[in-house]
Amino acid sequence: MDDTAGAFAEFFEVNGASDGPLAGKTLAIKDLYDIAGRVTGCGNPDWQRTHGAAERTAPAVQALLDAGGRIVGKTHTDELAYSLMGVNAHYGTPLNTAAPDRVPGGSSSGSVSAVAAGLADIGLGSDTGGSVRMPASFCGVYGIRTSQDALDISCAMPLAPSFDTVGWFARDVSDLMAAAKAYGMGGGTALTRIILPVDAWARASAETVAALAPMLARFEAALGPATPLILAPEGLVAWREAFRLHQGHEVWEVHGAWVSETDPDFGPGIRDRFEMARGISETEFEGARADRNRIRARLGAVLPTGTVMIVPTAPGPAPLKSEDQATLDDYRARALELLCPAGHAGLPQISVPAGVVDGGPVGLSLVSAAGTDADLLATVATVLTA
Amino acid sequence: MDDTAGAFAEFFEVNGASDGPLAGKTLAIKDLYDIAGRVTGCGNPDWQRTHGAAERTAPAVQALLDAGGRIVGKTHTDELAYSLMGVNAHYGTPLNTAAPDRVPGGSSSGSVSAVAAGLADIGLGSDTGGSVRMPASFCGVYGIRTSQDALDISCAMPLAPSFDTVGWFARDVSDLMAAAKAYGMGGGTALTRIILPVDAWARASAETVAALAPMLARFEAALGPATPLILAPEGLVAWREAFRLHQGHEVWEVHGAWVSETDPDFGPGIRDRFEMARGISETEFEGARADRNRIRARLGAVLPTGTVMIVPTAPGPAPLKSEDQATLDDYRARALELLCPAGHAGLPQISVPAGVVDGGPVGLSLVSAAGTDADLLATVATVLTA
Repeated sequence: MDDTAGAFAEFFEVNGASDGPLAGKTLAIKDLYDIAGRVTGCGNPDWQRTHGAAERTAPAVQALLDAGGRIVGKTHTDELAYSLMGVNAHYGTPLNTAAPDRVPGGSSSGSVSAVAAGLADIGLGSDTGGSVRMPASFCGVYGIRTSQDALDISCAMPLAPSFDTVGWFARDVSDLMAAAKAYGMGGGTALTRIILPVDAWARASAETVAALAPMLARFEAALGPATPLILAPEGLVAWREAFRLHQGHEVWEVHGAWVSETDPDFGPGIRDRFEMARGISETEFEGARADRNRIRARLGAVLPTGTVMIVPTAPGPAPLKSEDQATLDDYRARALELLCPAGHAGLPQISVPAGVVDGGPVGLSLVSAAGTDADLLATVATVLTA
Repeated sequence: MDDTAGAFAEFFEVNGASDGPLAGKTLAIKDLYDIAGRVTGCGNPDWQRTHGAAERTAPAVQALLDAGGRIVGKTHTDELAYSLMGVNAHYGTPLNTAAPDRVPGGSSSGSVSAVAAGLADIGLGSDTGGSVRMPASFCGVYGIRTSQDALDISCAMPLAPSFDTVGWFARDVSDLMAAAKAYGMGGGTALTRIILPVDAWARASAETVAALAPMLARFEAALGPATPLILAPEGLVAWREAFRLHQGHEVWEVHGAWVSETDPDFGPGIRDRFEMARGISETEFEGARADRNRIRARLGAVLPTGTVMIVPTAPGPAPLKSEDQATLDDYRARALELLCPAGHAGLPQISVPAGVVDGGPVGLSLVSAAGTDADLLATVATVLTA
């Protein structure tokens, strides 16, 4: 295959079952999930060099094969998945087909790029802080992050275990749902009530809100007018900060020893982030844990079963590739205010392609209670294929 | 009459026409509108002392008399109308019947208090920066600020002429509409599309947004789901700041000579505000004027004829009377972010009583294009009396 998108780390084929919901569908696997007999590279050459071949294939991959999918290769990821932009200092930046001058988003950058470019039907990704949702929004495809613990994420590189989730990309609702069936997430019932967190919406650009409004209206036409509410009475900046500290603490617990021992060659943004994670104190972590518990309680209260929260996936379209690191970091911080609620509470979230701003796609996100993935998927399927 | 609310500066009766839409209705007039033969006191004893009796009755008052209303007295106002809280260091704080431990809001404090207490049916007020809208929200009554230049506001003390408007309070929609008819503002057509400025909603407290949601839902049930948008791409703080400077400049142009000459005894918040107004430079004013022109253009673009913008009237319920001046000033600044758009662009705005938070009423506001007062009134009447 000709990887015109620069999305793949490695090409190879693995055939799946002869029949199933994914029969005839091609799969691109983020190079963070183990595939038996191959080294999982995790987007960093030093990781690749210091790790051996995987002994078994990750269950999240196997489920897609068992449903009839066919792997066509492994895709690039941001280094150790600790970024949201899709820029990899070692392996380059996968193409954002819909907006070639913009980043594709990450960390599931290669999987989204492969799907957007038509090089695979389903792109498997993972989402800790937004690594499926943000690239889906940036590239104009569907992307789902499943509930924490809904799917088996073993035999995959952990980033921050209490946040890590399985997710995937598709170009259309039909493929999105086919992969859901492969994971036993079919047969849900559409949600019936929309909430609109005005503080989250206020974090997106004016052009983005305007571009997303018609897609919101489609869901309101089916489910009734959205109820406005303030999601974070203490401010979304506080929620983002709790996420940064809690996630960073876990990242260093998981990867600190390897990073200290190996002193890997990291790209600039990544290196800084690991240094930040190294410096998080136990006291800061305890504070973040208490904050997270409060945030989970708040989300539980405003988002009961049957309710869907609709928000912009990201503050705007993908940044231009020509932006400097500081601008990317600033965008990332703003984006995390929109992305962190689902992460904090382990909620499922689907980003739906919804418009274009300044030539870059923007996605509208639907979020629901933990464990209601099938209902969330049914909502998207019902409204968008009506 | 027994003024249990402390709302009146002076009791007297003036009978109006024998018939009309306000026949049998009592009127409380803000002591800022001239009534022939009486001194207009404007909430300050030194103003009262240095001004003579009015020669004629203000047209905004006469119209109510000609429609059959009967004046029962003049009501207290914040000093020279340059406040939003309803606290007057000289004449006391009129009662907020619905929440006696909270301020009534101002500057049309006595008129709102009289109406809320049932001491008058219609309370005439004026609104420059929110002086009808905020007290209406605080006291749980209806309040309208009409479009700039829609009604004759002559023979009334000006505060900032390019912002000053006529407005009134009523306990129910029927009285609200009866006064509208007196001003020739009947016969409108209900607006057909709602916009929801998420950046403005995000300035209200979480409890307030929750309390207002059911009333918003009533309007959405009639007009269809609201379209979210960002009202102020440059931030509502910038809009508020442009308002403060532009208004302050006009206030000093109108009142600077009298203040400098008289050195009046002002309450603390008022004195500080006049000092602030005195200090605004020509350069600051020019900047604010340019900002205001951009803001007017933005509002014209997002709020065409036929559209209604729905926002919280104030960030929350009225502050407690026991709050200190700094807290009141802080609340006032936040409130102005919600109130200044209509002021900048001379738009009509109606505050509808919509809920209670911590024992204090909160109002939901409807805003429409300049000159569409009758349509805005018809929207409220149609939806709330359906």
